[in-house]
Amino acid sequence: MKYRHKDLLGLEGLTREEIMMFLDSARGFKRILSRPIPIVPILRGRTVANLFFEPSTRTQVSFGIAAKRLSADSVTITAKASSVLKGETLLDTARNIEAMKVDGVVLRHSASGAAHFLAERIDAFVVNAGDGCHEHPTQGLLDIFTIREHFKKIDGLKILILGDITHSRVARSDIHGLIKLGARVVVCGPPTLVPPEIERLGVSVHYDLDSAIKDVNVINILRLQLERQNRSLFPSIQEYREYFGLTVDRFRRLKKGVLIMHPGPINRGVEIDPEVADSKQSVILEQVHNGVAVRMAVLYILVRRVPWKEGGTS
Amino acid sequence: MKYRHKDLLGLEGLTREEIMMFLDSARGFKRILSRPIPIVPILRGRTVANLFFEPSTRTQVSFGIAAKRLSADSVTITAKASSVLKGETLLDTARNIEAMKVDGVVLRHSASGAAHFLAERIDAFVVNAGDGCHEHPTQGLLDIFTIREHFKKIDGLKILILGDITHSRVARSDIHGLIKLGARVVVCGPPTLVPPEIERLGVSVHYDLDSAIKDVNVINILRLQLERQNRSLFPSIQEYREYFGLTVDRFRRLKKGVLIMHPGPINRGVEIDPEVADSKQSVILEQVHNGVAVRMAVLYILVRRVPWKEGGTS
Amino acid sequence: MKYRHKDLLGLEGLTREEIMMFLDSARGFKRILSRPIPIVPILRGRTVANLFFEPSTRTQVSFGIAAKRLSADSVTITAKASSVLKGETLLDTARNIEAMKVDGVVLRHSASGAAHFLAERIDAFVVNAGDGCHEHPTQGLLDIFTIREHFKKIDGLKILILGDITHSRVARSDIHGLIKLGARVVVCGPPTLVPPEIERLGVSVHYDLDSAIKDVNVINILRLQLERQNRSLFPSIQEYREYFGLTVDRFRRLKKGVLIMHPGPINRGVEIDPEVADSKQSVILEQVHNGVAVRMAVLYILVRRVPWKEGGTS
Repeated sequence: MKYRHKDLLGLEGLTREEIMMFLDSARGFKRILSRPIPIVPILRGRTVANLFFEPSTRTQVSFGIAAKRLSADSVTITAKASSVLKGETLLDTARNIEAMKVDGVVLRHSASGAAHFLAERIDAFVVNAGDGCHEHPTQGLLDIFTIREHFKKIDGLKILILGDITHSRVARSDIHGLIKLGARVVVCGPPTLVPPEIERLGVSVHYDLDSAIKDVNVINILRLQLERQNRSLFPSIQEYREYFGLTVDRFRRLKKGVLIMHPGPINRGVEIDPEVADSKQSVILEQVHNGVAVRMAVLYILVRRVPWKEGGTS
Repeated sequence: MKYRHKDLLGLEGLTREEIMMFLDSARGFKRILSRPIPIVPILRGRTVANLFFEPSTRTQVSFGIAAKRLSADSVTITAKASSVLKGETLLDTARNIEAMKVDGVVLRHSASGAAHFLAERIDAFVVNAGDGCHEHPTQGLLDIFTIREHFKKIDGLKILILGDITHSRVARSDIHGLIKLGARVVVCGPPTLVPPEIERLGVSVHYDLDSAIKDVNVINILRLQLERQNRSLFPSIQEYREYFGLTVDRFRRLKKGVLIMHPGPINRGVEIDPEVADSKQSVILEQVHNGVAVRMAVLYILVRRVPWKEGGTS
Repeated sequence: MKYRHKDLLGLEGLTREEIMMFLDSARGFKRILSRPIPIVPILRGRTVANLFFEPSTRTQVSFGIAAKRLSADSVTITAKASSVLKGETLLDTARNIEAMKVDGVVLRHSASGAAHFLAERIDAFVVNAGDGCHEHPTQGLLDIFTIREHFKKIDGLKILILGDITHSRVARSDIHGLIKLGARVVVCGPPTLVPPEIERLGVSVHYDLDSAIKDVNVINILRLQLERQNRSLFPSIQEYREYFGLTVDRFRRLKKGVLIMHPGPINRGVEIDPEVADSKQSVILEQVHNGVAVRMAVLYILVRRVPWKEGGTS
């Protein structure tokens, strides 16, 4: 089986099989990461450019480490250091980077659609590392990878995505991927932060958290952008926590074995209580760990167009 | 033949033979860059420090990739992250970096002469990656490399440099290099942006673009620093474009085969129309690509003091 | 002999033998640095995260080069680029980085105790690269290394630490280390910048520089934080120089062979005259050079828990 696309722009455009290709390859790479010397020389001489037009710690570092584990080179350009200061367009910046013989571009950008725009115009592959409120497919893949590792399947699971759905590219990638793999997805948040048309994606919507968490297997808690309060999208942090936070109290009422996830960075005591974030059922740091394996799979597959098998093509 | 200098500060101080040494070595490195694994281990264990006291995307990334292709290490220090914040002088910063056993320093600085100043005071080699309005020799070399690759020679070509000559270190490096290799160089721009003494460098000056472009083989269009408008160096962007921009209209009147160059980043619709920048005759992205090969040649020659030959000394 | 700690947080908590372990390993690494290819593959596949929440040139670059010399990978996160912007706690940032399978964290932070706090909470090793006014142990080690290299011993030497003792983590690390190795340590500075309890650490205090410099073997001059003048901790820069600066005049009255040290970046003409900083007795750049070897030793020992011997375990 081959990967038919040049890019990874979102999970919306992928088939179930393509998603599985990433997940299965990532499983092999996770084993590599547990070796004493967790490096494979399979992308030696390849270069990935990380173009980050929004600040990010974990995504940027995660892609950087993933590239190193594969023996690929990477160059990182952040908005402030870049010619963006001089008014150069995104396209010109990317074309210039590409002209330096770069195999692919990992793009984080505040505009929804930025990655699509770029992918159509350059020959190098493009990985969408988050575009506005649209998609963040590697986060979606690592979320699904983490769930699958715990339940050995996705099909039939009930998964709640909790919080600011409207502005979340993570929610969108999760929804597309999880539904393709057979999960039942529920979203829950304040009406101002849940877009009405979201049901068309195949999810059910709740505005009451206590009813939404019934029988769930997984709760993925989204980060609350505290600055949105100024725009009156929610009344106060205290009230948000009361109605939509995963508090210790709510956590205790969950059935055993519910996975607690969060894409980070977390606001302790806002959308998630510290005791919940640090509980045994929390897999927040596992998500981060799996993120490196997933990004290795993504970079490998975009370079080679085939899934990775240990001991296989190098 | 050996390279007699410790540094590369400008093309003014080089002989024709020395310029050719860089160009010929770069030609070999360009072939390396087209290999599936475009890496040679010839500078393994060598370290280059990139000191960038002005923002830059392409030059910084280009030197970084060039170092990686040669298996050299590089460390990058940008103005904001550096001790410059604490008031340390350029010289102390560079001496400190040198004390960490760095072979050379690539310096971008807003002051004309900064690279010379440093080169006289440290043992490590210094590459001038742009000093104020003075020189930017690796840009000059990559421009000349690109022209030579297309015309197989420089001697006898008529080359127009268009725009803000006064503030352009690229113009100065191009002029010095091209004239040494036998080209006829014409400069053209608004009188406020062409220094009267420029003719002493051996160029002819035009203030009328339509007469300047007659019979040219190459037009190198400089970036207009839009912020200079506040200082009344040109009336308006619209008027600049009308008189000194390479518009589609002017472009169509050029004879066949004229190369269109620009050091980037371009202001589309100001000094160059988008259709011209993206035309077949535009080699703007080739310049960027060649820049990596040229910088590999520069780093190699400054470490080894001899030209590079494939299959030769490693 | 094994290194019993997970971390390097300060010299206060180390025994004489542990300090010697770092110094002896550093001596071997310094020889590596003088080789034509100054790289050893002994930490290949290991990853160090440099978390810098305060600006720094030399410490950050020094750790970065040290990691490269050992063939380790490093990722650098500076405050501005990081999730700190989004309000993530230091602990969450570090836990996330650790989850990406990082062996250790090098932490520079403005809060005294930040490194201790982190070390107790993550499994990865922590190197304190400066925490507030508390300790900066790798600077202390490189200072001691440099003194020992010149005098072949520390025991019995008289060492003056001059300047702003109160706010200096370098002073604290130097004092702890030097006293353990048998030196007599004198501190001198304006009464507002010398904490009264400092004598409990075993040093003698002088407020008069001309009496303090009698019979010293080494003077370590601390950087004056010029911004402290606004807080009236010293009257004027001119007056500071007169009473506490190592001027040419004072320098000439020193006995032969006194070592002049400074952790940098120096304020020329403030705490040290340029002629003194650039004199033969100044080992300021040697300190920087030795810093790379010392940091190689620190990274190696924290990964392997044993001293390094050339030709030994790789």
